[in-house]
Amino acid sequence: MVKQKKKGSKMAGLPPGTLIHVGERKIETPKITLIDYNTTEYHEKEVKEIEKCFPFEDKSNVTWINIDGIHDIETIEKTGEHLKLHPLLLEDIMNTDQRPKIEDYGDYIFIVLKMLYYNAKENGLEVEQVSLILGSNYVISFQEKEGDVFNSIRERIRRGKGRLRKSGADYLAYTLIDAIVDSYFIILEGTGDKIEGIEEKLITNPKPETLQTIHNLKREMIFLRKSVWPLREVISSLERTESKLIEGSISMYLRDLYDHTIQVIDTIETFRDMISGMLDIYLSSVSNKMNEVMKLLTIIATIFIPLTFIAGIYGMNFEYMPELQLHWGYFATLFIMVVVSIVMLIYFRKKKWL
Amino acid sequence: MVKQKKKGSKMAGLPPGTLIHVGERKIETPKITLIDYNTTEYHEKEVKEIEKCFPFEDKSNVTWINIDGIHDIETIEKTGEHLKLHPLLLEDIMNTDQRPKIEDYGDYIFIVLKMLYYNAKENGLEVEQVSLILGSNYVISFQEKEGDVFNSIRERIRRGKGRLRKSGADYLAYTLIDAIVDSYFIILEGTGDKIEGIEEKLITNPKPETLQTIHNLKREMIFLRKSVWPLREVISSLERTESKLIEGSISMYLRDLYDHTIQVIDTIETFRDMISGMLDIYLSSVSNKMNEVMKLLTIIATIFIPLTFIAGIYGMNFEYMPELQLHWGYFATLFIMVVVSIVMLIYFRKKKWL
Amino acid sequence: MVKQKKKGSKMAGLPPGTLIHVGERKIETPKITLIDYNTTEYHEKEVKEIEKCFPFEDKSNVTWINIDGIHDIETIEKTGEHLKLHPLLLEDIMNTDQRPKIEDYGDYIFIVLKMLYYNAKENGLEVEQVSLILGSNYVISFQEKEGDVFNSIRERIRRGKGRLRKSGADYLAYTLIDAIVDSYFIILEGTGDKIEGIEEKLITNPKPETLQTIHNLKREMIFLRKSVWPLREVISSLERTESKLIEGSISMYLRDLYDHTIQVIDTIETFRDMISGMLDIYLSSVSNKMNEVMKLLTIIATIFIPLTFIAGIYGMNFEYMPELQLHWGYFATLFIMVVVSIVMLIYFRKKKWL
Amino acid sequence: MVKQKKKGSKMAGLPPGTLIHVGERKIETPKITLIDYNTTEYHEKEVKEIEKCFPFEDKSNVTWINIDGIHDIETIEKTGEHLKLHPLLLEDIMNTDQRPKIEDYGDYIFIVLKMLYYNAKENGLEVEQVSLILGSNYVISFQEKEGDVFNSIRERIRRGKGRLRKSGADYLAYTLIDAIVDSYFIILEGTGDKIEGIEEKLITNPKPETLQTIHNLKREMIFLRKSVWPLREVISSLERTESKLIEGSISMYLRDLYDHTIQVIDTIETFRDMISGMLDIYLSSVSNKMNEVMKLLTIIATIFIPLTFIAGIYGMNFEYMPELQLHWGYFATLFIMVVVSIVMLIYFRKKKWL
Amino acid sequence: MVKQKKKGSKMAGLPPGTLIHVGERKIETPKITLIDYNTTEYHEKEVKEIEKCFPFEDKSNVTWINIDGIHDIETIEKTGEHLKLHPLLLEDIMNTDQRPKIEDYGDYIFIVLKMLYYNAKENGLEVEQVSLILGSNYVISFQEKEGDVFNSIRERIRRGKGRLRKSGADYLAYTLIDAIVDSYFIILEGTGDKIEGIEEKLITNPKPETLQTIHNLKREMIFLRKSVWPLREVISSLERTESKLIEGSISMYLRDLYDHTIQVIDTIETFRDMISGMLDIYLSSVSNKMNEVMKLLTIIATIFIPLTFIAGIYGMNFEYMPELQLHWGYFATLFIMVVVSIVMLIYFRKKKWL
Repeated sequence: MVKQKKKGSKMAGLPPGTLIHVGERKIETPKITLIDYNTTEYHEKEVKEIEKCFPFEDKSNVTWINIDGIHDIETIEKTGEHLKLHPLLLEDIMNTDQRPKIEDYGDYIFIVLKMLYYNAKENGLEVEQVSLILGSNYVISFQEKEGDVFNSIRERIRRGKGRLRKSGADYLAYTLIDAIVDSYFIILEGTGDKIEGIEEKLITNPKPETLQTIHNLKREMIFLRKSVWPLREVISSLERTESKLIEGSISMYLRDLYDHTIQVIDTIETFRDMISGMLDIYLSSVSNKMNEVMKLLTIIATIFIPLTFIAGIYGMNFEYMPELQLHWGYFATLFIMVVVSIVMLIYFRKKKWL
Repeated sequence: MVKQKKKGSKMAGLPPGTLIHVGERKIETPKITLIDYNTTEYHEKEVKEIEKCFPFEDKSNVTWINIDGIHDIETIEKTGEHLKLHPLLLEDIMNTDQRPKIEDYGDYIFIVLKMLYYNAKENGLEVEQVSLILGSNYVISFQEKEGDVFNSIRERIRRGKGRLRKSGADYLAYTLIDAIVDSYFIILEGTGDKIEGIEEKLITNPKPETLQTIHNLKREMIFLRKSVWPLREVISSLERTESKLIEGSISMYLRDLYDHTIQVIDTIETFRDMISGMLDIYLSSVSNKMNEVMKLLTIIATIFIPLTFIAGIYGMNFEYMPELQLHWGYFATLFIMVVVSIVMLIYFRKKKWL
Repeated sequence: MVKQKKKGSKMAGLPPGTLIHVGERKIETPKITLIDYNTTEYHEKEVKEIEKCFPFEDKSNVTWINIDGIHDIETIEKTGEHLKLHPLLLEDIMNTDQRPKIEDYGDYIFIVLKMLYYNAKENGLEVEQVSLILGSNYVISFQEKEGDVFNSIRERIRRGKGRLRKSGADYLAYTLIDAIVDSYFIILEGTGDKIEGIEEKLITNPKPETLQTIHNLKREMIFLRKSVWPLREVISSLERTESKLIEGSISMYLRDLYDHTIQVIDTIETFRDMISGMLDIYLSSVSNKMNEVMKLLTIIATIFIPLTFIAGIYGMNFEYMPELQLHWGYFATLFIMVVVSIVMLIYFRKKKWL
Repeated sequence: MVKQKKKGSKMAGLPPGTLIHVGERKIETPKITLIDYNTTEYHEKEVKEIEKCFPFEDKSNVTWINIDGIHDIETIEKTGEHLKLHPLLLEDIMNTDQRPKIEDYGDYIFIVLKMLYYNAKENGLEVEQVSLILGSNYVISFQEKEGDVFNSIRERIRRGKGRLRKSGADYLAYTLIDAIVDSYFIILEGTGDKIEGIEEKLITNPKPETLQTIHNLKREMIFLRKSVWPLREVISSLERTESKLIEGSISMYLRDLYDHTIQVIDTIETFRDMISGMLDIYLSSVSNKMNEVMKLLTIIATIFIPLTFIAGIYGMNFEYMPELQLHWGYFATLFIMVVVSIVMLIYFRKKKWL
Repeated sequence: MVKQKKKGSKMAGLPPGTLIHVGERKIETPKITLIDYNTTEYHEKEVKEIEKCFPFEDKSNVTWINIDGIHDIETIEKTGEHLKLHPLLLEDIMNTDQRPKIEDYGDYIFIVLKMLYYNAKENGLEVEQVSLILGSNYVISFQEKEGDVFNSIRERIRRGKGRLRKSGADYLAYTLIDAIVDSYFIILEGTGDKIEGIEEKLITNPKPETLQTIHNLKREMIFLRKSVWPLREVISSLERTESKLIEGSISMYLRDLYDHTIQVIDTIETFRDMISGMLDIYLSSVSNKMNEVMKLLTIIATIFIPLTFIAGIYGMNFEYMPELQLHWGYFATLFIMVVVSIVMLIYFRKKKWL
């Protein structure tokens, strides 16, 4: 999760606009899916080469091209050529190190987002960069690997119910972003469950591993935050945009989306506060436990040290030690020892140490 | 309190505007109350079906429909149809995960608020979402369950005294929000009492449970804050609104309401500061107590270790140990032990360790 | 100081504008003083009933009515009726829970301030709410109890020197606020003295009580801050106001007042930084002292444990222990013990533990 | 450094504009120096009474009057009378408790600054307030005592090289402020040296005094910050001023000055970060050292306690203890003791405690 | 890295605009390189004296003069004279203490940047100041020493591919800044690697040196931050500039550069969060380890102290101690000792201390 992608060493010295894939290659061959629909019609096919997707501009249909796998320079380049995209935009698509951002190029709007998965195997968050190009009647989406977040949207297009089939490319773009923001709620649900789980353990049985888990949660929140904060600006500027690509009628939906983003941010901040509170409780619990242990040592040592000393006295080998000759000397000594212990115990109780 | 409502898993993949109840179902059947009044007249009745409430628009009376229970899709849908409410608004009413917000839809204003109760049984705060729709001559309020915060307002309408019966729906909406803000003061009073209670214990007898209570208070403040901060913006934008639904004459009341909200926020921040100070005092108290215990151990051990050593010396069984034969050897040894202890006690006193 | 006034439970359910006293009743009967002056004349009298003060509007004199004691609903109500004050304003006067604020009602300006006293008996800060109503030729001031902060102003009016008698009601209002801000400097002086006092003790002799004092100071700063921060806005908006009640010529004085407020805030922030630094020093001092104690224990124990072990060896009762028969065995053992101690002391010295 | 000047108790109750010296009297008699120059001429003299300086207004020369010592009411008053200065301005000059600020009175600009010296004797920072009055052809500077920061400027005027003699009073004022800002760099250099010095000690030999030094540095940074932050606004508003007293041609110099101020602030913030890092290192070092000591105690005690117990066993006086009669019993016991110690040492090593 | 350059003591008292080198002299003789190109032509030469570079203004070519070594007053002065640069600008070039900044002088834009290297020998960051002067057809760059960050740009100019040879001086300036920003990514990559390296050690084997490394990383982040934060403003104001020196067509590239800077800042902030988390883990790890050690001491001591006491009892020399005569007394005592130890071990296990 920490791994800095090797942008610096790969990119340094190259002219801007050079196409080079920065990030982990998560899929072998890119997979290109073409969905084309209007209120009445619907076509879906997988194509091998991006060129086969292109004659869509003449039609009034909405076209959604989804590309899984962003490391194939050729595909990216051809897309760029055909749609006359800016070279820096293409560079950004291939560089998975981007922050969420929105750029309005006039004929098209370019949006970069971060999708987050919880990877159960590595027990950590996984980030995937999703780039969207929104044109007048098309949306092109780039993902690092095949994902299932967009599947439900495909299903909704197929079934043809709801607003989606009746609306334009801008509503499709909104739907895609909405699906990503919804996926954050799933991450947060998982985090909420983990927090609850840890909280119970915190009180009953704090362990060093608990600390490790708390720190992992803390770090996940750092990463979530890094992905979501800039998203807020992205959606806000999408809502306020004067681009002709965004129809006025979907601004209500964008406002709703914005509210969801704020909700995610709010929850992240609350979790951060709670996690840092948990850290405090953990440290206090550990120190309480330590104190309990130390107190026992103190009390046992404090009681036995004087007793052992008394025993030591009468273990001395002096020739003349009058007590030793007394018949009841041994029992008297034992009695004194008992008295000393009782007095000390009473003292400790009074001091509330017991 | 921590529980993230399962928005993510419930909502993910659904088209926006889908009506689905998100949150805990706090009541069995929704209860619909209709209050209808003007300066001279007053009607109040409970209806079974929301349709029976609707012919209110023709009248010049102020109509207040209160719906307890928000999980019944049919009721919400019918209300939406009749008043031509935006589907996203209906979705928001049913989703108890909203932040406080205000949305101006032209013909009506939609307000989401959070009501807070202290639940004595679970010893924690309980949040309830209240949605208000303010139209030209009506207010519709949605609550998660039957509550008593609005009862005093019903009483004031019945009695017909004061400004309420003489004013329009905007003043009624103001009165409802005011009642909710007033309820925060009651929460804060309770918190203030708890803080005072803990503070006395902190000095006399810090216990691990005290720590737990402090952390609970801290968390309650986090939740209160989350509910009240956005409220500030809500009221501020209500005050500054140019909507024709809000008459100029109540802006004075909204300013007063805004002042109250700021007061609540101020108090929350002060409490947060105080609670974090209490945490410091607690930790210091515990560590002071520990230090006291450790000091005793040190002193007892430090005094007896040399004495025990001396006793050990004369417990050795060497054949030739001249001191052992001396008649006063035993007493001299005891005397030396006393001298050593006294010297050490004086040293400790000088070092201010006693 | 902590006590939340019972606003919530007293106010909840009452219509806004209801007159009810919130706060502690600090005086039995309200005391009303009327001062009336211009450049040449000067009248001062104590009146029993507020009505007797009112025929002042016809005159061109400046009239200052000071009311000590704000719990008497009748007095407040009559004042309100006569001057046509807004009911919410009257409510605010009687509710001592206000934040400092300024409200421009056109014909009059309403200002709420907090006066702070150091209460030597309770060894804490005491807050008193002061409300001012500034009209075209009058100032009405409401205090919770008789105070001496305004006495010097009365004296200045009586003596008739300086600008005060020559200026209007706005200058009088400025003078009253100035007196309150000046009183903050006295509080800060006291705090400065206390900080200095504690600092010396911190180094020489840190005690748990010192910690308590530091926390009290910290809390006092929280309260001071809460009173002074909003004051800044109050004075700033008074300076920038376009109300005809404030003459341009006193804006220079308001700027000066604003500078003083900033100075108070600056000093509070500096004190906060210093107090939190003191807390750090205290904790370090305590832990240093503890370390010193522990080090002694360690060294004494570490030296005597091996010696006691040696003595234990020769205290064993084995039949065949050749060393015991040696004539110089005892002395050799003592010698070895001395050598062991010296070696250990040298080791400790080398490790810089001594 | 901490000492709050007794503004409150001295000023409280006095009308605004009353001239009273607030601060320490650092010099006996005020010293007044008059410098008068243009491109070709140059006069410098010390005068006893401020009146002798005044006939400068008729001349086109630039006049610089420097007054060391601000406690003499007469001098301040006469200056005020002659130049028609606002009484509040005169009050500010005499009150050394001001924050850096700038006030534009139309005919003249009033600037308050803080000069900082490192006082080697008291090993702390010393603050001196410098007030400047910039008129059309004169600058009047007020210092608390004779200082040498302005000496180099006098020298530059005398030598007549550079822009200074060719420019107006505004450039002179700029030069004076520049000299003060430059003096902050000297303070920061000293602080930088101290930080480096402490850092080396931190690692090799942390002592309680180191902590004291770190806290002193921290406090110095608080004071520096308090002096420099408002300066930033002062210079920025001087740069943006539309006063006819400031020629456009020096705005370049003011921008440079502004950059220097930002640099000072940056360095202060960096130092603050570094100092707080040092505090962390110190506390960790101390606790590391303590841990080392405790570990030794633990190991020695843990090894010897069982050995001493074994010796104790065979020191018992039971009549029938078969081992005691064995010829090799003593040596076997010693051997067992050696084995026990070795086993424990191996265990500790395995646990990486040694 | 900490070393404050001796600006204060060197500069204090000098008139502004005085040329004096502030900083470390990193190279002996300045090295001047002249590159001159347009779409078709390309010249590169090293010159000894700056004068030889100057007849470039008449040509329409783009001229890039790179000067390594900024301590030579003559070179700087001649450049300033020839191009009519402001004296304060020249002062800034020679003073390596500048913050990154941009200043628009109309005919030319002056930009100060910080280049960062990781110095493996000193195991720390090294800062180098780079100043750029961008004119209508020239860029002059000043470096403290010969560096290789710009080499790849020279190579691109030589090869003549890409946009660089076809664009003007503004694009060259952009390329230079881009190269510097790219170098930050390399630094951050290194930091990321170090963080990963430490994290593994943190869990397995925390050592005091780890703490030192964490603090070094923390400090490096402070320095990086200090260099990059102002850069953000520099690039932002370059993007928004209305200077005729910057063509509209490169604003896209500047936006991209701005995004990179934000990315760097984001990563720095994330690293800061992670480093401070690591500090917490380190301290917890150390304290956990200490606790483990202490627990062992406690348990061993707690078990053996009572046993040793029992042995002490029967080591007393009383004449009448009936147990001593019993034949099975010794074995019974040993048995009791075993029972006591087992009981204690069970107790510890129940308390989860083992």
